[in-house]
Amino acid sequence: MARKTLSEAMEWRYATKKMDPDKPVSQSAVDAIVEAIRMAPTSSGTQPFELFVITNSEIRAKIREAAKGQAQVTDGSHLLVFAAWDDYTEERINDVAELNVAARGESPLIRHYYENLKQQLLPLSPEQSFAHAARQAYIALGFGLLAAADLEVDSTPMEGFDPAAVDAILELGERGLRSAALMALGHRDPAGDWLLHMKKVRKPSEAIINIID
Amino acid sequence: MARKTLSEAMEWRYATKKMDPDKPVSQSAVDAIVEAIRMAPTSSGTQPFELFVITNSEIRAKIREAAKGQAQVTDGSHLLVFAAWDDYTEERINDVAELNVAARGESPLIRHYYENLKQQLLPLSPEQSFAHAARQAYIALGFGLLAAADLEVDSTPMEGFDPAAVDAILELGERGLRSAALMALGHRDPAGDWLLHMKKVRKPSEAIINIID
Repeated sequence: MARKTLSEAMEWRYATKKMDPDKPVSQSAVDAIVEAIRMAPTSSGTQPFELFVITNSEIRAKIREAAKGQAQVTDGSHLLVFAAWDDYTEERINDVAELNVAARGESPLIRHYYENLKQQLLPLSPEQSFAHAARQAYIALGFGLLAAADLEVDSTPMEGFDPAAVDAILELGERGLRSAALMALGHRDPAGDWLLHMKKVRKPSEAIINIID
Repeated sequence: MARKTLSEAMEWRYATKKMDPDKPVSQSAVDAIVEAIRMAPTSSGTQPFELFVITNSEIRAKIREAAKGQAQVTDGSHLLVFAAWDDYTEERINDVAELNVAARGESPLIRHYYENLKQQLLPLSPEQSFAHAARQAYIALGFGLLAAADLEVDSTPMEGFDPAAVDAILELGERGLRSAALMALGHRDPAGDWLLHMKKVRKPSEAIINIID
């Protein structure tokens, strides 16, 4: 079977409502999806989030309770939690600078770049910082969703959960993180999924695309 | 030439620093990238952003000035501006509900869903609303970046600009929008790009991926 084009993958994917609990996602596919998330570009290479890859049944049951009982959380085989930094700190930006120096060699330009970045990011309030960090995590969420579809793995991006409850379950506060989005992975149960058979709805181009020639 | 795998496309792409002004992106490729952005999933299907596709030289020159002079804005052939809703309003959510009803048929469930969504979104402050809407735009930014790489089109995602200045240039305030991110499209100039030849830097898996078995 020929690989789907990216546009076919976008057509194929949907926010799966019913996963088949008997069809777990292969480890190699999970690895590729997680790798896509790790490879996603972020503002100044900060990658200001962590990803939790959860198979543990008890933890997923608790998160499901905090997510309005959404069945994909436990019917899927893996739950991804995107947890963004709750604030920018000197230490966090310094670590990014060190990573760059380690990979590319010592350089006054790199040092200067990240000193400058600190001047921009450190004055932000925690709420502004989290808003910015969460946006970066959503680029990676986009990469993860497309990588899953490309591999014919179903996924459900979810914001319908109590972030404080998920933060408590995963002890994110202690790590300077806040949950931003969930993404369940699994394989669709076509017979049980009410959304699969409905028309995909997107705004027409003229409603959201503006051409300035 | 065989099409790249998605993982090869991720390796191939980078935040291009020097575009070749003599190599414009084909209209068909621009169309496919814009379509990927339109097809990206967003919270409850709200698609709370608009995309500006700018080739106009004067407008791009002004935006370049508002973007620290970054040359990709004018060296590339197209500049995409992601502009997120500055607030959630009853009218905006009603329009999304109507779109769904038009595509899927009249349904009390759809009506109820979006009434409920209004109860969640309308109480948010404009700042919270914009933060949420911008995150959705960033999923689409991720889709656009991957779609470009898949087509071997170079791109540069950019946050280093003065949002108020770009809002003024594009008269976004009058339309209830605020600029969130820029994305230049073009083809790399390998001889002039200092970043192309540097190692791609990403945090190691153990730094951002947490497995909970």
